[in-house]
Amino acid sequence: MTGTHTAEGSIADLSCRAFAADLAAKLPVPGGGGASALVGALGAALCSMAGNFTAGKKRFAAVEDDVQRILAEAEVLRHKLIGLIEADAAAFEPVSRAYRMPKEDPARAQVLEVATKTACSAPIETMRVCARVIELLEEMGGICSPMLLSDVGCGAVLGAAALRAASVNVFVNTSELADRAYAEALEREADGLLEAYIPRAEALAARVTDHIRGRG
Amino acid sequence: MTGTHTAEGSIADLSCRAFAADLAAKLPVPGGGGASALVGALGAALCSMAGNFTAGKKRFAAVEDDVQRILAEAEVLRHKLIGLIEADAAAFEPVSRAYRMPKEDPARAQVLEVATKTACSAPIETMRVCARVIELLEEMGGICSPMLLSDVGCGAVLGAAALRAASVNVFVNTSELADRAYAEALEREADGLLEAYIPRAEALAARVTDHIRGRG
Repeated sequence: MTGTHTAEGSIADLSCRAFAADLAAKLPVPGGGGASALVGALGAALCSMAGNFTAGKKRFAAVEDDVQRILAEAEVLRHKLIGLIEADAAAFEPVSRAYRMPKEDPARAQVLEVATKTACSAPIETMRVCARVIELLEEMGGICSPMLLSDVGCGAVLGAAALRAASVNVFVNTSELADRAYAEALEREADGLLEAYIPRAEALAARVTDHIRGRG
Repeated sequence: MTGTHTAEGSIADLSCRAFAADLAAKLPVPGGGGASALVGALGAALCSMAGNFTAGKKRFAAVEDDVQRILAEAEVLRHKLIGLIEADAAAFEPVSRAYRMPKEDPARAQVLEVATKTACSAPIETMRVCARVIELLEEMGGICSPMLLSDVGCGAVLGAAALRAASVNVFVNTSELADRAYAEALEREADGLLEAYIPRAEALAARVTDHIRGRG
């Protein structure tokens, strides 16, 4: 079975509708890793949206330089996350091929080990980038127009979800690795990112929601 | 300023890359509500993916009917959520126009009240659909091939995030309404959905992660 994306090149250039359809289908890619990177890109985009509606306004002139600096970085992070949708798919295809090798092939275990190590790289990088997205959202939430706070709050929710969903895709790969030192180093990094950034993103989302609902 | 979508019709037919770019831009739509619906659609799609890789396998013949039933419903929910991306944009544009009316126009308050009521409808419906997505993911997680559990876990994370992000878009609209009875009925429904379904989605995601990491 082939998906829409095989005819079109980059998975990130699929329409949202077609990406969701291919994710649903019996296709090796896109999978949870690509979906995580896309959700992270939406979190970065919401940070940019808050900045773009704040920039250039007289009332916020005092923070214009900070807004512009965050905008520049959020754009870089969004592009990185969009690129990670494709990188995740590219890294997963060799795993999918290795699983289809005959079980009695003596090379299978080694091919699968190498492919699985490579498949860790996109989700752990998605986690690193999402952690930075959460930092930028925190900063943007402190300076942007109050009209845009709900978008910062949504961005924080989506940034946290992308971080957590990407971690599932790290763990599903590291748990298959024979090289335990390699696996545990990645798991420690993933656990560290979850412990540090999920509470920060949740606190930001809660602050924004309380503010919107008049409890802040 | 116009976005890519104005030339192309439906926002859901934008590429993932272009949707994220338009979300980031100084454009009234898409906003947090559309991003929430898209993330919900990805959660529904991951439920379908787990089902599509389980269906038709001899080992899972005993649950084939349940898998097919969940697959049929998850597809309906995914299409609904993709439709809600567009519905959210359509409902937000009148709000955006009302905000641009002169402040001294005596009709402004009433036009804005009506537009804001309409703007609540897509995010509350996104919440209702995501609650059902979480129920289907729970059921799928209990019967699908263990190879697909990580996708169920990612789906649960994204379903919860979509529910929460959509709630921010309910509250940002209800908090502006003069009709407090109308606003409070929606807020009660949104709070009820959050209280009932966020813990269920988080428990599912935690169960899956523990299983993958060998702690289950």
